[in-house]
Amino acid sequence: MRAHQIAETYPAVVSLDSDALDAVRLLAGHRLPGLLITDAKGRPAAVLPASQVVRFLVPGYVQDDPSLAAVLNESMADRVADKLTGKTVRAMMPKDLKEVPSAQFDDTIVEVAALMARNRCPLIAVVEDKKLIGVITASRLLEVALAPH
Amino acid sequence: MRAHQIAETYPAVVSLDSDALDAVRLLAGHRLPGLLITDAKGRPAAVLPASQVVRFLVPGYVQDDPSLAAVLNESMADRVADKLTGKTVRAMMPKDLKEVPSAQFDDTIVEVAALMARNRCPLIAVVEDKKLIGVITASRLLEVALAPH
Repeated sequence: MRAHQIAETYPAVVSLDSDALDAVRLLAGHRLPGLLITDAKGRPAAVLPASQVVRFLVPGYVQDDPSLAAVLNESMADRVADKLTGKTVRAMMPKDLKEVPSAQFDDTIVEVAALMARNRCPLIAVVEDKKLIGVITASRLLEVALAPH
Repeated sequence: MRAHQIAETYPAVVSLDSDALDAVRLLAGHRLPGLLITDAKGRPAAVLPASQVVRFLVPGYVQDDPSLAAVLNESMADRVADKLTGKTVRAMMPKDLKEVPSAQFDDTIVEVAALMARNRCPLIAVVEDKKLIGVITASRLLEVALAPH
């Protein structure tokens, strides 16, 4: 089995210029493990795991000093939609986001698993000649690995 | 909204002594973001993200030297079920697994989001008096945050 045989169409592929609120709705609605973000040419640019997307719920001063979270007014979560309205996915990208390489279409299951584990990344883009041909999530990889041969 | 109001029953709660193959099947079957691992008393002991569960597909010498993945025989993925058969979840735990604290039942959305983001963890256990009362995944948190109030 090679990466292109395992890769699937992924609902949460968005570009850096996509609407941030739409992107988060996509993630939440399908309960997906993260966003695959593409550049203007549709080539994979970054993976934003869901655990990092939730960062926009946390004000900067709380990220710097987590003990402040406990004293925050609860009502601030009500303003979530406001915070993302009119913003692009680019504005949601953490500055220190780790670059996750894509898998090549002919990579083996073991190569994809190694890429995923090393980068602690729940999804990997699969490319052929830099063009996106699909996505492999961690649970998809496990599903394939466990399937009877 | 407090953590106990958002927490859900989570299908992939397993103990350190559970069967490893069953645990991985659970994860793959439900397409979940990770395993919540409990101790003998049913208290949360660790979170194993799906991106780390796939590690068992990667032989140790490839984890040490990723360039070796490309030269591996493909057929080795066929032996996946064999590798896990008769093993417990404990045997699957990476030695360097980061400890992820649980959320308290009365934590706010922002506190849970901060915990998740800081630990880069796709799910958080919610406890009351150390007892597990449910799990909050990143996508669940986003769903709640986006819901109209």
